[in-house]
Amino acid sequence: MTKYLPKNIENLINEFNRLPGIGPKTAQRLAFYLLKSSEMKSRELADALMNVKKGIRFCNKCFTLTSEEVCDICTDPMRKQDVVCVVEDSMDLIAIEKTGQFHGLYHVLHGKIAPLDGVGPDDLKLRELVVRVDLGEIKEVIIATNPNLEGEATGFYISKILAGYPDVKITRIARGLPSGGDLEYADQTTIGRAIEGRVEM
Amino acid sequence: MTKYLPKNIENLINEFNRLPGIGPKTAQRLAFYLLKSSEMKSRELADALMNVKKGIRFCNKCFTLTSEEVCDICTDPMRKQDVVCVVEDSMDLIAIEKTGQFHGLYHVLHGKIAPLDGVGPDDLKLRELVVRVDLGEIKEVIIATNPNLEGEATGFYISKILAGYPDVKITRIARGLPSGGDLEYADQTTIGRAIEGRVEM
Repeated sequence: MTKYLPKNIENLINEFNRLPGIGPKTAQRLAFYLLKSSEMKSRELADALMNVKKGIRFCNKCFTLTSEEVCDICTDPMRKQDVVCVVEDSMDLIAIEKTGQFHGLYHVLHGKIAPLDGVGPDDLKLRELVVRVDLGEIKEVIIATNPNLEGEATGFYISKILAGYPDVKITRIARGLPSGGDLEYADQTTIGRAIEGRVEM
Repeated sequence: MTKYLPKNIENLINEFNRLPGIGPKTAQRLAFYLLKSSEMKSRELADALMNVKKGIRFCNKCFTLTSEEVCDICTDPMRKQDVVCVVEDSMDLIAIEKTGQFHGLYHVLHGKIAPLDGVGPDDLKLRELVVRVDLGEIKEVIIATNPNLEGEATGFYISKILAGYPDVKITRIARGLPSGGDLEYADQTTIGRAIEGRVEM
């Protein structure tokens, strides 16, 4: 970074800079902020970092991150046990939970099929999904993989492997214009999907 | 944040979120990134955090951050010993150093006069600047405080307290349009300063 900074400060700047989305200027700002703050602030962040993986495991049922054997959602008797929403990772699960509009269960794939990155179906929690469906308790599988090439390919793959269960409805979350969006600035694919998926008023 | 995350992860998200300029979404992204990365990455950042203040002190002469009694710039015999650039903090020093265009010494104030924040002249390294000037070795003091209200007031204050040294030239870094800037989008004060500070071609 610069030769006129003590090594420890430079070291912290470099560590911050290695995080995704943190550029050299932000890294410098963060390092100086912590340098000026009380030692307790650095220590609290350091402790949180050291502990983040402790006691974290995958839910035995839906494979989201949890500290229990089975997560709070899977053990919640108020949730619909026969609807399962399939997401790529736990962050997507959180995004859906925040809407408060989904009351079923989840299944976290931990990735998407991405041949270029060497990720095939066997690297995801797909077999585990089939096992859950096989138990016969699920009436609907909602595919909520990301609306991009790899996410859609993954969704398509799931719909194919679950096609053998005629009693299970397979759905996909809607594609269309985002709320607050602007037709003029939307890309062609989004507009195309919005027209294709039009609903009667 | 969300009740569906293990406490340790939530904890790290909260800690990141407390840093300036890191919003909840970035905090979440960083926490999940570290969760997925090897434990070594978290450990290295944690170590850097714990060590950032260790052995850091102010240079005895210019008061920048250093691990030595006197910093590398002050001890560099190649630098002009009779020109001193006054900056608000060490980050400003680094910004100037990066240009490679200044070959004198620095004086770091560690703040600016800000009555609303309760920061007066005595809270800055101003007396120490006068002591340096008093030694009679300095020919020019370049004021490089930030071009905002408080920075300029601080610069003005410095020029006043150094007015008693007729042999010392007091200068201020130029105000004007930034390189690559656009007259049309520049604010009135900047354009006004640019006209005021015009130079002959």
